[in-house]
Amino acid sequence: MIHTPFKTRDEVPAQSTGGQDVEAVIEVYPEYVRGLEDLDGFSHLLVVFHLHLSEGFGLKVVPLDETVERGVFATRSPRRPNGVGVSVVALERIEGDKLHIRGVDMVDGTPLLDIKPYIPHLYPGPDEVRIGWLEGKADRLRGKEPGGRLGA
Amino acid sequence: MIHTPFKTRDEVPAQSTGGQDVEAVIEVYPEYVRGLEDLDGFSHLLVVFHLHLSEGFGLKVVPLDETVERGVFATRSPRRPNGVGVSVVALERIEGDKLHIRGVDMVDGTPLLDIKPYIPHLYPGPDEVRIGWLEGKADRLRGKEPGGRLGA
Repeated sequence: MIHTPFKTRDEVPAQSTGGQDVEAVIEVYPEYVRGLEDLDGFSHLLVVFHLHLSEGFGLKVVPLDETVERGVFATRSPRRPNGVGVSVVALERIEGDKLHIRGVDMVDGTPLLDIKPYIPHLYPGPDEVRIGWLEGKADRLRGKEPGGRLGA
Repeated sequence: MIHTPFKTRDEVPAQSTGGQDVEAVIEVYPEYVRGLEDLDGFSHLLVVFHLHLSEGFGLKVVPLDETVERGVFATRSPRRPNGVGVSVVALERIEGDKLHIRGVDMVDGTPLLDIKPYIPHLYPGPDEVRIGWLEGKADRLRGKEPGGRLGA
């Protein structure tokens, strides 16, 4: 489970850099703690979680801070057929069954599905890709928290 | 479902750059096609899928091409408690219910869970992160396919 300061979805920061320094704690079941070994060497994690507050889905959705409807798979909206969220967060430290992380926008109590090491070499950089309807909005994205105002 | 040339896990390319040019097709159910609108402007996708051939899990696993056991959450091994894989792939074109992609290492018939636009601005670059036990192996990682020889 992911414990964050955001008790409701409305509290998730609206500003693009709002969640970047927000601290949170991932708590894993004690029987999985051994699987966390070697993870403390990584500064960032890929966190996979259930968008548990999202009810139903839309094929066309209006992303946050936007006015135009987009195909849901071209957005990070939580209103998707399979409610799986993926975010990169900074790992501060691990204490037993608790991972102290930073840079979140999940609602408090979000169920954790998986943790993976974040390996940047597997991800192309901004100069190597096209980002469709988000083109020209890159300034808004730069410096923002992972998984931020664009949805989950 | 994800259709790839790899009929078994043993066929998934062993060399670090083996899968980079491998073409594959994602097929979505017809009722979800409308949700693909606006996606064609993106050059890369974040694909979330089920590691359906993985039976059971280990808390300590030996990553591919490695000899030392690591905590499973510090690896991309498919032998994890929740068998969810995440990979970045290149999007070539969309034709109806089919997305032609490139750069895969999934086994043929892998069930698709979600498609998201890949937005590189949300992911820190190699100079901004530490990668633990993978430090010093970055040369092996650079230029390799997403989701490649390190597991899923």
